[in-house]
Parts: sequence; C-alpha cells; structure tokens
Amino acid sequence: MTNTFSFDLQNTDGKARTGVIHTPRGDIRTPAFMPVGTAATVKAMMPESVRETGADILLGNTYHLMLRPGAERIANLGGLHRFMNWDRPILTDSGGFQVMSLSELRKLTEKGVTFRSHIDGSKHFLSPETSMEIQRLLGSDIVMCFDECPALPADRKRLEESMRMSMRWAERSREAFGDRPGHALFGIQQGGLEEDLRAESAEALQSIGFDGYAVGGLAVGEGQQAMFDCLDFAPDQLPVDKPRYLMGVGKPDDIVGAVKRGIDMMDCVLPSRSGRTGQLFTRQGVVNIKNARHADDPRPLDEACRCPACRNYSRAYLHHVFRAQEMISGMLLTWHNLTYFQDIMQGMRDAIAAGTFAEWEAAFHAGRAQGDIEPL
Amino acid sequence: MTNTFSFDLQNTDGKARTGVIHTPRGDIRTPAFMPVGTAATVKAMMPESVRETGADILLGNTYHLMLRPGAERIANLGGLHRFMNWDRPILTDSGGFQVMSLSELRKLTEKGVTFRSHIDGSKHFLSPETSMEIQRLLGSDIVMCFDECPALPADRKRLEESMRMSMRWAERSREAFGDRPGHALFGIQQGGLEEDLRAESAEALQSIGFDGYAVGGLAVGEGQQAMFDCLDFAPDQLPVDKPRYLMGVGKPDDIVGAVKRGIDMMDCVLPSRSGRTGQLFTRQGVVNIKNARHADDPRPLDEACRCPACRNYSRAYLHHVFRAQEMISGMLLTWHNLTYFQDIMQGMRDAIAAGTFAEWEAAFHAGRAQGDIEPL
Repeated sequence: MTNTFSFDLQNTDGKARTGVIHTPRGDIRTPAFMPVGTAATVKAMMPESVRETGADILLGNTYHLMLRPGAERIANLGGLHRFMNWDRPILTDSGGFQVMSLSELRKLTEKGVTFRSHIDGSKHFLSPETSMEIQRLLGSDIVMCFDECPALPADRKRLEESMRMSMRWAERSREAFGDRPGHALFGIQQGGLEEDLRAESAEALQSIGFDGYAVGGLAVGEGQQAMFDCLDFAPDQLPVDKPRYLMGVGKPDDIVGAVKRGIDMMDCVLPSRSGRTGQLFTRQGVVNIKNARHADDPRPLDEACRCPACRNYSRAYLHHVFRAQEMISGMLLTWHNLTYFQDIMQGMRDAIAAGTFAEWEAAFHAGRAQGDIEPL
Repeated sequence: MTNTFSFDLQNTDGKARTGVIHTPRGDIRTPAFMPVGTAATVKAMMPESVRETGADILLGNTYHLMLRPGAERIANLGGLHRFMNWDRPILTDSGGFQVMSLSELRKLTEKGVTFRSHIDGSKHFLSPETSMEIQRLLGSDIVMCFDECPALPADRKRLEESMRMSMRWAERSREAFGDRPGHALFGIQQGGLEEDLRAESAEALQSIGFDGYAVGGLAVGEGQQAMFDCLDFAPDQLPVDKPRYLMGVGKPDDIVGAVKRGIDMMDCVLPSRSGRTGQLFTRQGVVNIKNARHADDPRPLDEACRCPACRNYSRAYLHHVFRAQEMISGMLLTWHNLTYFQDIMQGMRDAIAAGTFAEWEAAFHAGRAQGDIEPL
C-alpha cells in the first residue's frame, strides 16, 4: 500500500505495456479492464464476485449516481466505496458523456451543461467545477476531467471547436480538483480521428499536467478499423510514464487491439450487459445461450473457464434459466463474461511481461476463429 | 452419511421436536425450513449461498420442472441435483397443488388430472403413477404422494370425498413408487379442518405405510388461527417416529406456531418472494425497504443478522438498489430473508434441545412486537 498515486511501467512488448498503478486503495495491474458499476452495483454481481473475476478497479457513473441516490447522500453515508461495499479503487467518469446520451433537454454553453434527469425530469447542471465536486463527494480514486464527447462521424470544424472547449474545461477541471493526495485526475484527449487535433489536444493536456491520460471520443460509432487507425497514433502522443485509458471499449478483440497499440486501461458495459441478454464471450468466440441447440447439452459453456457458470453448470442449465428468465441466469452469465474479460487481461499482462504478446495475440484470434464447439 | 433414509428424533419440549433426518445426500436437521427452488433455482440465489444460509434441503416443483425444461431432459442431464448444482437433499412436491393453482383447462377424474401448461398451452396428464415417474426422473430424495388439495373454506362433503380420493391416490403412489432404497415417499394427510376426517386420513396413510407424513390442505385460505386449531390435533394423529411436514408454510410466526405443535419440516416461497418485493423479515418485525425513511439510514437492516445484506450494507444502500431495480436488490434481500428463516429454525432446534422452547418463543414474539428501530 502507498499513500500516493503512481504508475510503475514494468514491461513493454512492441507498443504493448504492462505495469502497476499504485493507489492508497490497492494496486491496479495494467492492462486493466474496469467493470462498470453504473448505479453503485455491477449489475447482477456481488462485489466479492467481481473481485474474484480478477478486477482491481471498478468504474462508477457520475451521471447516474448524482441523480440517484445523489452525491451528497453518498458522501454522508461514507462515500461510494463504503456504500457499495467495494474497498478497492474506483474510477468515476465526469458525467459528460451520459448527459449527452441519456438526459433530456440539454443546453450546452461554455459554462457547462444544463439538463433534465431521465429518471424524474428534475433539472441539473454539470460543469468542470460541479463534476469535480460530485466526484469528490463520491470519493472517487481516479477522477475524470469534464469534457464534451462528440459522436462520430463529425465534421472537422465541430471536432476542433469541441476539442478546444474540452481543453479549456480540462484546465478548469484541474483548477477545481485542487490538491488531493492519493487521488488522481485524468485528462481526456479529444479530436476525433484527426491526428493533428489529437496532437494539439495531447499537448494542451500535458501543459496542464495530469496523473493519467484518457483517449476519449472513440468507440462512438466510427467502427473498429477507424478506431485502430486512430490508436496507431493517439497513445503515442501521450506521456510514456502515465497510464493511458481508452474510454468505453470494448469487445474482446477491441481490447486486445487497443493494448497492442499502447493502451493501459479500459472499461465497458459489454460483458455485464451481454451477460443479461444471453450473449457469452468465450475462448472460441461468441455463444448465444438462448439458442435451442444448447437445450440438451451437458457440456460447459467454455471448458477452459474458471467461472462458476462453466465449472458448475451445463449449457443445458444456462439455457434453461435464461429461457425461464430466472435471475441466476443474469448472475451466472455476467460472472462468466467478466471472468473471460479479466482472463484476457491476465493473459496479455503475462504475455507482455514474457515478451510473447504477438504469440498470445495469434492464439487469441485463432481460438476465436474456431467458432463454438459442434452441437452434440 | 448413510445409504438409507431414516429419522432420528432426538429431543422434545412440549410437543416441539428436534432431530435429524438421515439421507444418502446428507443430514437434514429438524425442525427444517426448505427454501423453494421452483424452476431448478432458488430465485436470485446461488446454491452455495442457499447452503450458507443454513438450508439442509431444497424443495423443487414437479409441475414447473415437468413443463420446463422437462423431467426426461433433467434425467438425461444427470438429475436435478447435478442440473442445479445442489448435491444435498431435494424434496419434490407431486405437482398436484400447482396444477390446481396455475394450469388451465383442468379435468380431474379418479384416474388423474389433464391440464394445459400455463407456459405454452401444451397438454399434460398427472396421476399418482406419472407423478411418481416424474419425481423419479428428477432424482428427488423425498417424493410426495400425488393428492388433491381443496381450497378452504370447503363444505364437509367436498372435503370428505376429496380426502378419500387422495387416500386412494396415496395407495397408488405407494404402489408406483416401489422400492427405492435411500429415497423416501411421504404420504399427505387431508381432511380440511375436520378432526375426524384428519384422523381417518392419518389412519389410511399409516395402513399403507410411508417414510414421513405431511399435513396437507392447510395454509390455503383458512387463516392462522384456524390453521393452529387444526395443528392442535392433526400432527398428533401421525406417527411419532416419522417426520411430519407442513406444506407451504409460512410466515415466521406460522412456522414457530407449527413447530410448537409438533411439525418437523416446512417450505414456503415467502422469504424469497418477499425478498424480491422489498419486504424483509427481521428480529424486530417486518421492514419495507422501499419506504423513504430508509433513504439516508446508515444502519444495517437487522443488527443481529449474519447475512451479507446486514453485514456489508446500509439500509440506505438496500433502499437505493431496490428503487433503482438493480438485481443485487433481489439477491441481497432474498439472502437476508432466507438467513433469518434459517436462524429461526436454528434457534428453535437449540431451544428444544435445551428444553427452553417456551422462553425462546416468548423472546421471539417480544422482539417482533417491538417493531422496527426508530427512524433517525
């Protein structure tokens, strides 16, 4: 344990990196995948089980938490960690992205965003200053700058203006965050798919100075190839000695491609959301458990998986409880997906440390290309 | 472990009894409360967690399982225990009660009941013989006779005719069950609230001979006092040296009153169903977690409870996740209710063994009469 926030880059293999982020609440092994605990819970999971999957850190959503149950309430109850019974690190987003995607009647100015709650229509205001205050009340270990994230495709002028406002907001976020030992503030690079705008953004952020740097504004409709093309240059524009976080990514092959390009941290609702809809990620590709082919299948979902869904149950059982809409279905399938995602991260960390990332990646893709086992 | 089914009555205190039912799949401490695993899952619970609450045995519903996923399918997959990852004893009901309460287009004759599935409208037939076969396919440790259970109030003639048919069905059930070492068949006493009909039923069952005896036909609309009045004589009509099972009961005070009157086993969906609707049973009475008074309350639901909901979370958190309709709400609240029910059973077992059941019962009622802690 440590009283300060620091990043220890331990090995590289090509552009892929492995290391450890030290925080007062525990270490985060990188590359790290952060499960999303939107409303103070990773849906369908007990926090002990999330930890068992191998997660070192969770993501909490400022937008959701500020609306319900409210940041002051959480602060009065001892902070988000205690509230949700997760004593390890928590990263919170700034709320900006979800204001854009979920709220109603948004009004965006240089000062910030006024919007109405999607839950009860109540009126709220988010700005760099209020976002920093809310994330402080939540007790977040890694705080994200308040930024604007335009959907792609967007024209260059829109991207440029938005990025420059986000950089002014980054400065205001830094100012409002102040000096909070043991807590980190991450800047967010914007600029769409434009290399020069990304470079300008990266420079602006570094001149302010942050504890880590996110690549924002990707995985917003541009497709995997365009994202990878951008990741071929964007991480290189950021400091080598700080964590690099790709926000909102992604599918297993997105994650592997991002790590290959120098990303250290990611988050996504995909494994938990897909778990609830019966879409499973396995070493041999995607399995849809609601398919009738599984109804009599005594075999595990993924023979190599260590999760309870694979160790203790047949595909037939997982199919049955999914079809019967039993809660254990969401519980087991989410557990599986989160375990698989964490196993990918562990595999990459080990491979990078051993200098065998290329071999690991080839085996990863080969397994998935096989497709699911044959029906019985 | 043992290869046979047997009941070891260890202590009595008044009419209350404590003992152990030995089965090849493990011991069942009595008085025992059996959580209900309707469709091969105790809703919202992992089986390991059900075991942690203190449950020695689960109940499975023949009606639900025969319709989905089907008894032959479960048999082909290695039986219900393996299917649902519960290796301890399972009792299955006969399907008769739920045919009456859930299915459509029922046609009842001396031979059995024809009905349509509430899931897909498919046509099925249940009789003493088919019920025994389905329960055998499931691999049930304690099999229940197929009977008819009339709702109360019902006129005496209806009760008498129904009871006598159930006794003929009990004989057919015994015949169809055959000789299955290590598996038990329980007869079911009927006769409504009529002492002489209950006596006639008890005699008919004993002349057939069963491994245990259920008091059926109660908790079907008659109210607690009428049920207790019936339990003042009905268990005494059954053999002393065999387990006595009161079906479908009940609320905590129903359970305590039944044990006081000589009942050894019970089952009910109440703790799990109420958990999902936010109704919690505590040492100080019922708590409705959706009530706004809990929104800022940092205190545990029940300070004396050992379950994760009470050990690791505030009332404020439980309120929040219930209002946000998060799955962890059903998970935690069910866990609490099942733990509380099992703690009542353990308390009664200990008190009966110590000869202090009356004192335990007085303390139980006094705690509940206190009502919930004052709002902050």
